[in-house]
Amino acid sequence: MKNSKYITEPIQAYIVPSGDAHQSEYIAPCDCRREFISGFTGSAGTAIITEKHAAIWTDGRYFLQAAQQMDKNWTLMKMGLKETPTQEDWLLSVLPEGSKVGVDPWIIPADQWKHMSKALTSAGHSLVPVQENLIDPFWTDRSARPSSPLIVLGLNYTGMTWQDKITSLRTKMADRKITWFIITALDEIAWLFNLRGADIEYNPVFFAYAIIGRSSIRLFINGDRMADPAVKEHLQLNSSSKPEFEVQVLPYESILTELQGVCGGLGPKEKVWISDKASFALTEAIPKIHRSLTPSTPICLAKAVKNATEIEGMRRAHIKDAVALCELFAWLDKEVPKGTVTEISSADKAEEFRRQQKDFVDLSFPTISAVGPNGAIIHYRPLPETNRTLSLNELYLIDSGAQFKDGTTDVTRTVHFGTPTAYEKECFTYVLKGHIAVSAAVFPNGTKGHLLDSFARSALWESGLDYLHGTGHGVGCFLNVHEGPCGISYKTFADEPLEAGMIVSDEPGFYEDRSFGIRIENVVLVVPAKPKYNYRNRGSLTFEPLTLVPIQVKMMNTDMLTQKERDWVDEYHKQCREVVGAELERQGRHAALQWLIRETQPIA
Amino acid sequence: MKNSKYITEPIQAYIVPSGDAHQSEYIAPCDCRREFISGFTGSAGTAIITEKHAAIWTDGRYFLQAAQQMDKNWTLMKMGLKETPTQEDWLLSVLPEGSKVGVDPWIIPADQWKHMSKALTSAGHSLVPVQENLIDPFWTDRSARPSSPLIVLGLNYTGMTWQDKITSLRTKMADRKITWFIITALDEIAWLFNLRGADIEYNPVFFAYAIIGRSSIRLFINGDRMADPAVKEHLQLNSSSKPEFEVQVLPYESILTELQGVCGGLGPKEKVWISDKASFALTEAIPKIHRSLTPSTPICLAKAVKNATEIEGMRRAHIKDAVALCELFAWLDKEVPKGTVTEISSADKAEEFRRQQKDFVDLSFPTISAVGPNGAIIHYRPLPETNRTLSLNELYLIDSGAQFKDGTTDVTRTVHFGTPTAYEKECFTYVLKGHIAVSAAVFPNGTKGHLLDSFARSALWESGLDYLHGTGHGVGCFLNVHEGPCGISYKTFADEPLEAGMIVSDEPGFYEDRSFGIRIENVVLVVPAKPKYNYRNRGSLTFEPLTLVPIQVKMMNTDMLTQKERDWVDEYHKQCREVVGAELERQGRHAALQWLIRETQPIA
Repeated sequence: MKNSKYITEPIQAYIVPSGDAHQSEYIAPCDCRREFISGFTGSAGTAIITEKHAAIWTDGRYFLQAAQQMDKNWTLMKMGLKETPTQEDWLLSVLPEGSKVGVDPWIIPADQWKHMSKALTSAGHSLVPVQENLIDPFWTDRSARPSSPLIVLGLNYTGMTWQDKITSLRTKMADRKITWFIITALDEIAWLFNLRGADIEYNPVFFAYAIIGRSSIRLFINGDRMADPAVKEHLQLNSSSKPEFEVQVLPYESILTELQGVCGGLGPKEKVWISDKASFALTEAIPKIHRSLTPSTPICLAKAVKNATEIEGMRRAHIKDAVALCELFAWLDKEVPKGTVTEISSADKAEEFRRQQKDFVDLSFPTISAVGPNGAIIHYRPLPETNRTLSLNELYLIDSGAQFKDGTTDVTRTVHFGTPTAYEKECFTYVLKGHIAVSAAVFPNGTKGHLLDSFARSALWESGLDYLHGTGHGVGCFLNVHEGPCGISYKTFADEPLEAGMIVSDEPGFYEDRSFGIRIENVVLVVPAKPKYNYRNRGSLTFEPLTLVPIQVKMMNTDMLTQKERDWVDEYHKQCREVVGAELERQGRHAALQWLIRETQPIA
Repeated sequence: MKNSKYITEPIQAYIVPSGDAHQSEYIAPCDCRREFISGFTGSAGTAIITEKHAAIWTDGRYFLQAAQQMDKNWTLMKMGLKETPTQEDWLLSVLPEGSKVGVDPWIIPADQWKHMSKALTSAGHSLVPVQENLIDPFWTDRSARPSSPLIVLGLNYTGMTWQDKITSLRTKMADRKITWFIITALDEIAWLFNLRGADIEYNPVFFAYAIIGRSSIRLFINGDRMADPAVKEHLQLNSSSKPEFEVQVLPYESILTELQGVCGGLGPKEKVWISDKASFALTEAIPKIHRSLTPSTPICLAKAVKNATEIEGMRRAHIKDAVALCELFAWLDKEVPKGTVTEISSADKAEEFRRQQKDFVDLSFPTISAVGPNGAIIHYRPLPETNRTLSLNELYLIDSGAQFKDGTTDVTRTVHFGTPTAYEKECFTYVLKGHIAVSAAVFPNGTKGHLLDSFARSALWESGLDYLHGTGHGVGCFLNVHEGPCGISYKTFADEPLEAGMIVSDEPGFYEDRSFGIRIENVVLVVPAKPKYNYRNRGSLTFEPLTLVPIQVKMMNTDMLTQKERDWVDEYHKQCREVVGAELERQGRHAALQWLIRETQPIA
């Protein structure tokens, strides 16, 4: 921070966000700078280092994990608690007068830059871009940027050619009088071109940028991947396609120079469209007068509303996923009493069963396999030193999912293999009531997801309980398991209204530190509802569960459920039995089928 | 818009907001410029006039009213509907290239200026302040600015001296390293100085500004009101008070010059604190580097959390208000069958009964007294030409309230004097379920009101119904009936978390255009709740109704209520009977007492 080899002027603080140059939530090892410097491996968190202090801000999912992983040099800042200062308030309280705060302009999103810069400037400090990342020089064993082979997805998976997607994008550009559209989010590029990669573990994306003009397409990607004949043919790199669909392939690293070139040639009224979450480095390259920033890009929105082919794929993927989980739970019922199953071996078994399913590509995130107190670590990942044995005495929470070529899954079940306590059942039932309240909610077209969040908490709140995470996130279709721009959260981020075809998770929970964790998660599809009336012809929506895995009745205190809630459970289990049962039958998985039938009996 | 007598350069559009220089929601006749130009009398709405068009944006409460009051020259823009363009989008679609859009800088809040200016600038237009208001020159019969006598409130009403309030404010200024605090909101000035006025109908405020320094107080107010000996003594204008509490009285009109003077003398790090909702004119007078803008001022926050004296006053006021309404409903039960009661005479009768109560000052807003289809006009006010007769066949909605010296009330009841239809009862019961869901909600400390809004809608949504207004607003204590910074709304404005002592309304509704309107409104106090558990020691809150007026059981379809909802109704009615019954008894109002007892019988 003081060495003129790296910076022109000394800085008094350095911010290390957890993202990469594409603002990905999950990142490649070469981008895990915050983890390298702090030891904290969670998916969300920002480190700030000053001359005397080092602090990490993270959210409720990671409070326990971060505290365990970091040494005493680090102060843990628990976001969302009243007493926790914001990053900017904390900086203002520790910085000497007139300080400079540095950050890598490629890693900080433009909206966060703006916010932080404003706060610092108003207190007489300044935020400065440090072109060379200050972690990299002493990160000697940093790995290379991945460059995995690409997967070409046909119309049977995507339902729409990439050319049609580009045409639709260009229509939206024309509507807003936009000359150039810049894509920096990796899942948006993958979706647009109907390509997938494996550059980031669990996320079928590849490192690339794109610049879409009214009649040109520039794709910035490591070139050797374009040598694959299937990719070449898919992108029509050799054939003489229509000029407006000719893809110009450029080196990944040349995005900034090319963008500067594009901006240099802009007419006085021409506009360049970019997400306000893109990196400060790229955003800043567009002169302010030509910049058109939006919180959600048109691709992000189009990607969120799944088409009929994608929905069918997601259904298939969830049935296959349920088959694997029925196998797992049937196996656990048999093996747990022997005392030989651990968090790690159970997670491995789940993966083994998933791998047996057609079109399996990878897991969709590291399996959270957590016994007893480990369940209270919301994004727990079992490690040899924390690995507990599944038993008849403790709750077991498993949050897992897979990437199939036809869809992405994400499901959490919390089960007990012995006799749960009355308190565990009580808490589980509050969580279940919340899950059902969201899943069965009917709401007008145009409702934003954050307006549904309290439905998930109402039963917990009534007893003085709560959980410190959102209720749901968008789910991609053979893409990132977390995607925008919709979700269900008390945080009123710029979420877009829910519409039919969107897919989100519904996952309330309850966590008792050092004791247990409960979460019930289904992936649900937004579908039209047909209630009795139709006020102002707005139409109504509701959710249809795509996840079809039984919810353990043993954990429910059914006396606490209303008749309507009991009916919901029975109807859901009937669906699981019929749909997944048929597939188990077809695959000849009889033990799992027996387990499914047993677990889906109507509530007495 | 083209006359160089008023403007230096021609403008292509002129914005006429509905506020005054204090951004008041309800305004004095001399400030009703939007009403003068358009004919639309609602409390919210913005007019924009271009060379060819004239349009008004207003919200769901006023769609019907605005359509009725405006002639064909005006286009009604229904805010909140998907197809309605925002003001800026509409301007961009109609303006010729490089247009100038004018607005009175005293009337537009700084945050709105910023938003509008950004949108216009990004499209090559510009927003310009027009110093002379363009409506005034041809508004020949415009009345003078009111200057009503002031009311001094003693400690028995306020619970805190104005000196203590100033001291507390100065502590918050010191915490944020603020040198000067500018107050522009009329209710904040009235609250801070423990004074009330009558400059704006129904709102006990007076036209004034204040600048609070670390050891000085400047009050900008029409001087003759300071001649009142009671006011002089209250503000210690003659006595030699401590220097830091010496009030310097300056002319109302001199605020800008004085503020400019203050800003001229600022040291390099000194800050001036002002609400981001203050006028652009005053905000702009503070150099950007010295400006500290916040969405809620510390006075707004302090005012929202009522102290024990204020809460006791609000309780007394609501009991007196309930006495008046019991009298009204008993009288209506007797008179309506004769066919002689109209919307206007019923409203007058309600006022007559309220006037009989101790410390009555005025109504708190124009009474909404609406029969049948008029009930669907959310902020309806009966006029001779719309006046309907109360009958045995139509629903009657009355939304009314009063200013007492000890508190402000606001209550809505919807009743039927004959036999309601099954559909009317069904809709009423959905609204009641929503009212109870909010009123009985338990939620963690720190919860913002907007997270409770969906509870009020859930039952309606389930049947495909909804209402196009928020669920609740803050209520002042002998102050404005609508106040910030808390509320319950699907609009996620910058509301502050609810805390014990805050007072809001709970008023879901349902409106069938051209047919009927239903609303059930209580004013409720935020109080600590004691549920079974206390997660992370956060503590819980719930609401206690201050309004104690029976809800008509005849309108309920009790089969649609859960046992818990039935218990809530019975418990609420028991409260009404005991508390208001005792006061009716004390005041010797026997007919009203009989009515109260009849209307508060437990649900069968």
